Amino acid sequence: MINKRIYLDNAATTKVDDDILNEITKYFNIEYANPSSIYKESRTVQNAIDKARSSVAKLINANSDEIYFTSGGTESDNWAIQCVKNKNKKHIITSKIEHHAILNTCKYMQESGHNVTYLDVDKNGFINPQTLEENITKNTSIVSIMTANNEIGTIQPIKQLCEIAHKNGAYFHTDAVQAIGKLDIDVKDSNLDMMSISGHKIHGLKGIGALYIKKSTQLKNLIYGGSQESTKRAGTENVAAIVSLGLACEKLTANKDEQNYIRNLRDYFVNQVLSKIDDCILTGDKDKRLVNNASFCFANIDSKILIILLDKACICASVGSACTSGSIENSHVIKAIGVDDKYINGNIRFTFSKYNTKEEIDYTVSKLAEIVKKLRNN
Amino acid sequence: MINKRIYLDNAATTKVDDDILNEITKYFNIEYANPSSIYKESRTVQNAIDKARSSVAKLINANSDEIYFTSGGTESDNWAIQCVKNKNKKHIITSKIEHHAILNTCKYMQESGHNVTYLDVDKNGFINPQTLEENITKNTSIVSIMTANNEIGTIQPIKQLCEIAHKNGAYFHTDAVQAIGKLDIDVKDSNLDMMSISGHKIHGLKGIGALYIKKSTQLKNLIYGGSQESTKRAGTENVAAIVSLGLACEKLTANKDEQNYIRNLRDYFVNQVLSKIDDCILTGDKDKRLVNNASFCFANIDSKILIILLDKACICASVGSACTSGSIENSHVIKAIGVDDKYINGNIRFTFSKYNTKEEIDYTVSKLAEIVKKLRNN
Ligand SMILES: Cc1ncc(COP(=O)(O)O)c(C=O)c1O
Ligand SMILES: Cc1ncc(COP(=O)(O)O)c(C=O)c1O
Repeated sequence: MINKRIYLDNAATTKVDDDILNEITKYFNIEYANPSSIYKESRTVQNAIDKARSSVAKLINANSDEIYFTSGGTESDNWAIQCVKNKNKKHIITSKIEHHAILNTCKYMQESGHNVTYLDVDKNGFINPQTLEENITKNTSIVSIMTANNEIGTIQPIKQLCEIAHKNGAYFHTDAVQAIGKLDIDVKDSNLDMMSISGHKIHGLKGIGALYIKKSTQLKNLIYGGSQESTKRAGTENVAAIVSLGLACEKLTANKDEQNYIRNLRDYFVNQVLSKIDDCILTGDKDKRLVNNASFCFANIDSKILIILLDKACICASVGSACTSGSIENSHVIKAIGVDDKYINGNIRFTFSKYNTKEEIDYTVSKLAEIVKKLRNN
Repeated sequence: MINKRIYLDNAATTKVDDDILNEITKYFNIEYANPSSIYKESRTVQNAIDKARSSVAKLINANSDEIYFTSGGTESDNWAIQCVKNKNKKHIITSKIEHHAILNTCKYMQESGHNVTYLDVDKNGFINPQTLEENITKNTSIVSIMTANNEIGTIQPIKQLCEIAHKNGAYFHTDAVQAIGKLDIDVKDSNLDMMSISGHKIHGLKGIGALYIKKSTQLKNLIYGGSQESTKRAGTENVAAIVSLGLACEKLTANKDEQNYIRNLRDYFVNQVLSKIDDCILTGDKDKRLVNNASFCFANIDSKILIILLDKACICASVGSACTSGSIENSHVIKAIGVDDKYINGNIRFTFSKYNTKEEIDYTVSKLAEIVKKLRNN
């Protein structure tokens, strides 16, 4: 037996790093000044914000003045999709496996007069660049394709897709909320126009995100008001959360080994599961997947029940993404990759972090095998 | 001499209450689960969010399901103004002394085809209900008037203004970001349709706010995505910040004496300043003003310089609102109330909290008198 809860849902959210927590607490009750005021205290926090901005920029090879803080990945996605200005063009291209922050924003854009094309993916979750070529038109204002999928971890050929968008006069946005820190992203090399990230997926605080906006991108505000964020995103700066995002990015820049540690754990887990449990498939691509993602479909299993029994065994895992876990619909991602009928209700996701250990993995594999066996024998 | 910094800019932002800070830290590194997941940890944080929602509701006499958490007062204001749906009506009424979160959102609405009327105020900063009657039309979709002004503290006759809006088929929204906790607000008694509040003005965290939305109000989303906040405001819930807002509201509900403590300090300060410094006027109304607000105009003084000298004397005060403090424009509020020319550059705001003491006030009055005298003798 293991004597604690095992958290394997790091794609849903992560524990705030203790080093980060130690650094930020002072911004609540000591250095709490409003950064827009003009006395000494305000300059101190303004400097902390500047530093955070450059730490975020550094991780993705952007300039500091191309980083705009938002309230999270969802706001960043909404901002990019709702507010891009591209010569009154009214066609948006995205994919069938985007996060709801993109999908539901696109749905709203449709209701307000835009055309939206949702690209298909193949059985591993890839968008074929050819499909984008076929669907893009001179009226396409923006192409938004996630860097990597939150449910199955598939990493898209972003650079190639971006090139196609540009060739056709469209902007390219990517939702990198899951990808950031799990793979190296270079906004200049990929030539991205906009990119969304979020703090709470990388051991920063909840309620903070950023949108990378390349200087040449025409984007109106989503939120108007004071002159914060160079007048592009109003609202008193969420200082502690901004600093947490900066520190999280700094740690990721400094600590490239973390990716390997997590990948090794994940690979070990996947191998164990596939060898010990019958009739189970790994969803997404075997190689081009996020280092922290292990997602499966178990034949003839209702994953909702599986999750509950894992919970009872002290293991936190999830069905699809967190924000649809409460609902009873099947995952739109699993539908899009087209698994066989017997697998369709059996999708489950385990996502790892630097805090997980081999001991936790061993325990989880044995419990998982036990529970799946019991459910199938019922 | 006094041996520490004196913070008299509580309208810009406030220190997080230590009790609140003690309660919320666990949500960063212990109870950090995503509330939308389905295991035990998630239910715990979901309950904490529910509790916070009902604490906010209780303070303003709303129902819990009429409280929607946002990233702050600015987002709440944007949401109300940008997203209200009222039979395709395209006329908005607001006032000349609103916060920029309202003014700049209205400016954007103008650019996108709406008509906006900015009501004048009298020399104490009041909107005359008669003026609203004269300007409202059958095409007015929403009237947005702040409960109390952030610079001069004037409290508007919200209930009366709301009645006029309703009589003419318009919605009524109020920005209560400064008012909340400083005066009793009853959304049912005033019959408000929407109201914005913000956590960091009441000793909660930055980056959290709420919009009260009466059930009958038709409002589309500003931010789309997951099904958080009953699908009306997507994005992973900012749990710690939400709980901080709930606790801040609980404290305000329990501790009505706080208002008196602050009012007494403020009254003492105002009397001292007016009696000790010549050629100085209290801006705003003497009686119908926020309990924590003392705002003045000093004749023949450049308040930018005054602020800097106060800063050197360890006192934090502000010129107008925080988010315009950095800019060189004169305050739009001071312009709107029409002070004499010799006063126009000399506006300064001191705003108090439960943490301020009489000793701090005495020190501030004497330093202020000294500095003003010196500046005038130069
Ligand atoms: C791919 C993806 N995009 C966007 C989001 C939304 O980010 P946030 O929770 O910061 O609003 C998430 C996570 O919830 C995600 O996984
Ligand atoms: C009257 C008023 N409205 C709105 C805001 C904006 O609130 P927030 O800072 O939470 O975005 C402020 C404070 O900055 C304010 O004083």
